[in-house]
Amino acid sequence: MSLIAETPAPPYYAVIFSSLRNADIEGYARTAARMMELATEQPGFLGVEAVREDLGITVSYWSDLQSIKQWKANAEHRLAQQMGMDKWYSSYKTRIALVERDYGK
Amino acid sequence: MSLIAETPAPPYYAVIFSSLRNADIEGYARTAARMMELATEQPGFLGVEAVREDLGITVSYWSDLQSIKQWKANAEHRLAQQMGMDKWYSSYKTRIALVERDYGK
Repeated sequence: MSLIAETPAPPYYAVIFSSLRNADIEGYARTAARMMELATEQPGFLGVEAVREDLGITVSYWSDLQSIKQWKANAEHRLAQQMGMDKWYSSYKTRIALVERDYGK
Repeated sequence: MSLIAETPAPPYYAVIFSSLRNADIEGYARTAARMMELATEQPGFLGVEAVREDLGITVSYWSDLQSIKQWKANAEHRLAQQMGMDKWYSSYKTRIALVERDYGK
């Protein structure tokens, strides 16, 4: 179960990944879980929140753009991205955003 | 059903609202639906994506910070925010972020 990420004071980066999946998602669940685990081990990783109904939204938080680039270029992650593009996702959008302000309770 | 928002080319703003609800959420569904409807009518609104399991993530997209401020200050929205803080949400976090880059299919 995903909780609200405990991120440091801004500024930091958010990667908002929104996706719709195809009917056939063989292998998806295992890879998605592995990518969540692998992401947490990366330099600059600050936290992640993920929810899916039909639409899935995963927001990962990072200290800087360089960390995001390194994660995108990670070899195991690249394989997963390729599977996602070729097989699992009917459509997706990745947005890279600088968090300027946050508040909550 | 929420789809992937068709946003213009960056830069634009994202408001990432992550929340966990209390057990008693009387009145929540109607107000949440009304706020989605009302948001779409606001100046500067570009789109919204919303998903909930236990965790809820709603990402709304806006042309600029001024539009976000006006929406936050909207009278009907202020009442809803107050109900959310007082009754519906056990915890929440709002993050205001400048989308610098996006890509997808």
